[in-house]
Amino acid sequence: MTLLKSWVASANGPKHPFPLNNLPYGVFSTDTFDPRCGVAIGDMILDMRRAEEAGLVSLTDDALFDVPFWNEVMEEGPELWSALRKRITQIVAEGSPDRERAEPLLVPQAEAEMHLPFLVAEFTDFYAGKHHAVNVGTMFRGAENALPPNWLHIPIGYNGRASSVVVSGSDVRRPWGQLKSPEHDKPAFLPSRRFDLELEMGAIVGTASDGPVTVDEAFEMIFGYVLLNDWSARDIQAWEYQPLGPFQAKATATSISPWIVTAAALEPFRCDTPEREVDLLDHLKDTGPMLYDIDLAVSLAPEGKPATEIARTNYREIYYSSAQQLAHHSTSGCPMTPGDLLGSGTISGPTKPERGSLLELSWGGKEPLTLESGESRTFLEDGDTLTLWGAAHGDGYTIGFGECTGTILPALDNPYER
Amino acid sequence: MTLLKSWVASANGPKHPFPLNNLPYGVFSTDTFDPRCGVAIGDMILDMRRAEEAGLVSLTDDALFDVPFWNEVMEEGPELWSALRKRITQIVAEGSPDRERAEPLLVPQAEAEMHLPFLVAEFTDFYAGKHHAVNVGTMFRGAENALPPNWLHIPIGYNGRASSVVVSGSDVRRPWGQLKSPEHDKPAFLPSRRFDLELEMGAIVGTASDGPVTVDEAFEMIFGYVLLNDWSARDIQAWEYQPLGPFQAKATATSISPWIVTAAALEPFRCDTPEREVDLLDHLKDTGPMLYDIDLAVSLAPEGKPATEIARTNYREIYYSSAQQLAHHSTSGCPMTPGDLLGSGTISGPTKPERGSLLELSWGGKEPLTLESGESRTFLEDGDTLTLWGAAHGDGYTIGFGECTGTILPALDNPYER
Repeated sequence: MTLLKSWVASANGPKHPFPLNNLPYGVFSTDTFDPRCGVAIGDMILDMRRAEEAGLVSLTDDALFDVPFWNEVMEEGPELWSALRKRITQIVAEGSPDRERAEPLLVPQAEAEMHLPFLVAEFTDFYAGKHHAVNVGTMFRGAENALPPNWLHIPIGYNGRASSVVVSGSDVRRPWGQLKSPEHDKPAFLPSRRFDLELEMGAIVGTASDGPVTVDEAFEMIFGYVLLNDWSARDIQAWEYQPLGPFQAKATATSISPWIVTAAALEPFRCDTPEREVDLLDHLKDTGPMLYDIDLAVSLAPEGKPATEIARTNYREIYYSSAQQLAHHSTSGCPMTPGDLLGSGTISGPTKPERGSLLELSWGGKEPLTLESGESRTFLEDGDTLTLWGAAHGDGYTIGFGECTGTILPALDNPYER
Repeated sequence: MTLLKSWVASANGPKHPFPLNNLPYGVFSTDTFDPRCGVAIGDMILDMRRAEEAGLVSLTDDALFDVPFWNEVMEEGPELWSALRKRITQIVAEGSPDRERAEPLLVPQAEAEMHLPFLVAEFTDFYAGKHHAVNVGTMFRGAENALPPNWLHIPIGYNGRASSVVVSGSDVRRPWGQLKSPEHDKPAFLPSRRFDLELEMGAIVGTASDGPVTVDEAFEMIFGYVLLNDWSARDIQAWEYQPLGPFQAKATATSISPWIVTAAALEPFRCDTPEREVDLLDHLKDTGPMLYDIDLAVSLAPEGKPATEIARTNYREIYYSSAQQLAHHSTSGCPMTPGDLLGSGTISGPTKPERGSLLELSWGGKEPLTLESGESRTFLEDGDTLTLWGAAHGDGYTIGFGECTGTILPALDNPYER
């Protein structure tokens, strides 16, 4: 696969995140247009509502784009997904006979405000990055007991809070919570002092299931991927998480990048999961390359200061593919719904600059990072802007995700004293 | 408060679960009518869709009852809730001038099939029954470490799976899952052998919030209550729950009773939470009686055999009211949504016959229960029908919940060998 050419000239650069090979799906609005589905091509967005109204896209009896979310497309299933991608490719490809009709339907990304691209049905967050799990386990339980006994046998996950999911660009308010410092005998209600990011990929479930699905079936159910930052209050988490897992520590916000990069666009970048120490049980075994080779980076910019890249890694470090995670998620008969979002778990590589959280980068706050501005960080400070980046690199082209960013606002005054 | 009289004669018995004092909200269908909102009165259901169409109920500009769920009513907020209850009371009260118009809108409950009364936005399950937590903790960690250090300071909860929620009467399929018996070194994929119930109450969040709410505000946000059975696969849970909490063990099904008993109907039964060992932090402190005096019972009927009552307790055993749980849930800024369902946690009393799960009743399977049919049980067997009951007892009247029942179907053949 090489770069496919579009009549939208900006899409034809080898490093542009949104070439014809990508065609990611988002929801945008402008001063003129209320929120609606759109497809990124170069620096532009193809307005899918108007494209459908104009008869340029017409694959179903009922309208797909009269709503400002992609769930209705998802629910149609893989055949429609494929036909839709083919049709959009035709419309914006170099030499397309549709150019004249389509050109007025393009909106510059610079004029668009992005919204959540889909209605999040439920959110599940996994813990499937082995370097991350080993790092965190070593800090909390020592190197010998770093990985829990189940970790190499199932993708450990917990249910998160769908209502916490926000689109990139949304500010994130530092949370209050109940904390207990080791030096105090009693807990206190305070703003979090160890507020952190987690670099993750999010897989979006496109079709429903109501019983156990195989890894192969799960792979076919996944509509696409986004970057995901699972903001985490480490001090709230430490006090609350035993015995039933993280709760308020993860409920403040979960940011995702605005463009759904489809599984189809990522097809050339499929790769194997890392080598395994123990065989998985049959129902979770890899049946082919279902992970993706996606370069990832994290940058941190203090307020009014330039950004420093604080981590760089790759999605291929994840130990269980989203297909394996989804298969495991369904084992109990748990019904899965279009719009379910599965966080991969924090992605860290084997070396220090590859760690996907400040908890790991600062080793629990003991080894502060020095930023290019000269400031140091253990955890996030008010005014910090955190940005995740992701891209798959093909032969002369790039499949980009757009950025996933958020700025930390100071905690409210005590929210109960008003 | 005493029994209020209705012209629906069956509603006037002192033990009938649905007198005029109750008026619980459900969704029903019949051979003639597709699913729609209804209000139980005695043995009948008032069809709210037709009542609205006939102009008998008309409190808003837009229709509230053109959809088969109560979420639109919830979203209107407490003033509308109060006006609606007042209007329905007028319609079905003894001597009502509306009797002639309303009588044709009644449907016998015997002819109705019940559906989920609301769209479940998200489901959170708490662990707020102290006797339950002490029993489980003692089994797993010994009596000295029974309660985790945080337990007396915050209502411990975890996010559950909204898609698992089903209405009473739905069969429950025994799940498969990854298990590891202490006598094996490796996990295996098997049907659960320790499938259990959990007796809980469910509180339904009626109005939205997007920042921390006080206990008083939380109390006002709760629309009503249902019985809730949080089916639990103990063997799956034991293997998966460290370090991030229960996941597939709780995802097969969560049954709720079909009638939402409103907070208004339960008003006369408000009571205090149990005495506390330690003071709560200010933002979680009780500000008045916000728990309810509701008698609860559990019965188990093996296939084709009579039922045995296996537990009897009261909602007042719960250590944190739903208002306290909801206030805690919001501390991080977690947005709450109409239709969020909060499970109270398993409700157990101090003595053995008051325990709300088989895990506790059979003390981890070591002390089998003997049923009236002569059979014994440690955990649930295929064909068992489990029923939860709940009622508040007033002066000559009863506020009933209807039953919350489910029958265990045998596990599928290996779902991955097909």
